[in-house]
Amino acid sequence: MRSHRRDPGRPTLSEVAARAGVGRGTASRVVNNSSQVSPTVRAAVWAAVRELGYVPNRAARTLVTQRTDSVALVISESGERAFGEPFFAGIARGVSAGLADTPLQLWLSWIQSPGGREKMEHQLTDQHVDGVMLISLHDADPLPGLLMERGLPTVLGGRPAQMLGPDAQPAYFVDVDNTGGARQAVEYLLSIGRRAVATVAGPQDMGAGVNRLVGYRQALAARGRPTNENLIAYGDFSASSGVEAMRQLLARCPDLDAVFAASDLMALGAIKALHDAGRRVPEDVAVVGYEDSSLALHANPPLTSVHQPVITMGREMARLLVAQIRGDEIPSPAIFLDTHLVRRQSA
Amino acid sequence: MRSHRRDPGRPTLSEVAARAGVGRGTASRVVNNSSQVSPTVRAAVWAAVRELGYVPNRAARTLVTQRTDSVALVISESGERAFGEPFFAGIARGVSAGLADTPLQLWLSWIQSPGGREKMEHQLTDQHVDGVMLISLHDADPLPGLLMERGLPTVLGGRPAQMLGPDAQPAYFVDVDNTGGARQAVEYLLSIGRRAVATVAGPQDMGAGVNRLVGYRQALAARGRPTNENLIAYGDFSASSGVEAMRQLLARCPDLDAVFAASDLMALGAIKALHDAGRRVPEDVAVVGYEDSSLALHANPPLTSVHQPVITMGREMARLLVAQIRGDEIPSPAIFLDTHLVRRQSA
Repeated sequence: MRSHRRDPGRPTLSEVAARAGVGRGTASRVVNNSSQVSPTVRAAVWAAVRELGYVPNRAARTLVTQRTDSVALVISESGERAFGEPFFAGIARGVSAGLADTPLQLWLSWIQSPGGREKMEHQLTDQHVDGVMLISLHDADPLPGLLMERGLPTVLGGRPAQMLGPDAQPAYFVDVDNTGGARQAVEYLLSIGRRAVATVAGPQDMGAGVNRLVGYRQALAARGRPTNENLIAYGDFSASSGVEAMRQLLARCPDLDAVFAASDLMALGAIKALHDAGRRVPEDVAVVGYEDSSLALHANPPLTSVHQPVITMGREMARLLVAQIRGDEIPSPAIFLDTHLVRRQSA
Repeated sequence: MRSHRRDPGRPTLSEVAARAGVGRGTASRVVNNSSQVSPTVRAAVWAAVRELGYVPNRAARTLVTQRTDSVALVISESGERAFGEPFFAGIARGVSAGLADTPLQLWLSWIQSPGGREKMEHQLTDQHVDGVMLISLHDADPLPGLLMERGLPTVLGGRPAQMLGPDAQPAYFVDVDNTGGARQAVEYLLSIGRRAVATVAGPQDMGAGVNRLVGYRQALAARGRPTNENLIAYGDFSASSGVEAMRQLLARCPDLDAVFAASDLMALGAIKALHDAGRRVPEDVAVVGYEDSSLALHANPPLTSVHQPVITMGREMARLLVAQIRGDEIPSPAIFLDTHLVRRQSA
């Protein structure tokens, strides 16, 4: 794989624009993640970024700043969710472990309020930290591009949906095999004889949301079954959204006998809605979650779930960030981690 | 109550030392929270700090720095505990809400590793933030004094044990009525006819640990009963420590019929140990926790617990910190919040 070297003659955003055959303003909008650029142009600019090994004007930055020995982990969600969902705690612990042997101090934050995004942008682009790790990104989020343009070492954990394609990938990211994990979950439900397998899908502006739904469709397609769109409902990964989505599914397809939920929290919400509707889990409806968090272990019934290595994901994010800050060679700027199904009582 | 004004003629650490009748080095050691100073001298220095309205060399600081528009919330525990205990999430959410209408960005951190304390001290004293909130402080922690001496606005959430007395209080803090809450819990257990009321006490180098044990003793004394020291075991507020402490108590006093645990997590651990020993809760042993977190609600059986207003505590910490940073008058630098018992099934 291509290495990203840190030589002084590194390309500028203008060179990226030239290579992509677009104006500098357009290139800037792309790395700023603006939605006003066509997918084709976006793909061309990201391809040029990767081909040239573009890492923004760090040299200019080092003239006016100095090391702060601090890095930020930013959860692009509210504090309620940042603290309510075990995924974020796992990432934070992994990152923290990954930084233990460095002089870098980790600072965690989240979007405090609707007005909080602006504060955060100001903070991150104002030389308070040496690097940033971003998690739970949605398509509309301008932060990844903003940081990249400012020359701040940045690593994404997971990707917004529009950065899923091989031509539109961010420079540095760690992601899990969401498609494969979901496919395994649905294949398992089919293998134990379930016939009407529904899904509570995640947000479709997040890579994890999109790809877990892709995996669901792939598993059905592999058995020669077209997807029944009535068996798909959407949530935002939270438990309450899982309750709501499960109610919709039961109303539409009362004879469903299995559900794959794209997060453990949505699975717990689905189980609650199923119990409220008098269905037994797993006898009447088998339920599989995604993440294999501590919630899965302590659920009632204990939850069959797709394991994603959250701590490792955090560690790898830290490793990629430290390498950028140090100017080390980075043989592989995109890290994909495997997932696997853990069977318990719910399916 | 005395107001802490921000006038240019504010006292120096030397004046504090003179007032307390000690040398500047001793005064420095006291605000640095060194354990090598006698309690009497410590009390004299803290009294002088409060009498003179000493807030350290902020003027000198503003000469060399500028606002960062960021503040830190530091949990003086490992990441595992920072994310595993609902108390910290509640404080963080309260602080976050308290800062929502300010330009200040909140950054959260914890002690990443055994070597992490040094990194943290370096970060906090190196002008990266405009102010610091510290929670879960133990006696040995040098941070409060270090920050005060550096002139950084600082607010404590809870207090280390050695800062409990009226003469040794830190300048700015928010605390709950730990003694009163514990007393209510034990009075309730006695009122429902329990005769052998044990306690799983918290760490005795933390104010919350000390005062919840004081409340336990007070409730027994009010009924004319001397404390049976065999009915006291100690934990560190974690669930696993609650399991261990309960095992010790059962071994020492097999006929105990009630337990007051100084945290919900320790109460959950105690319930586990009781169930493991074949005891029914509450029939054989009634259990009361402390905090009334979401864990209490979802415990099996749902936990009777002392409610402490964690979100409000966080909000008040933010308010005190913002006032210091702005140089507002602070009519009351010490905030005490009430607690009350919430009855559920465990007692």
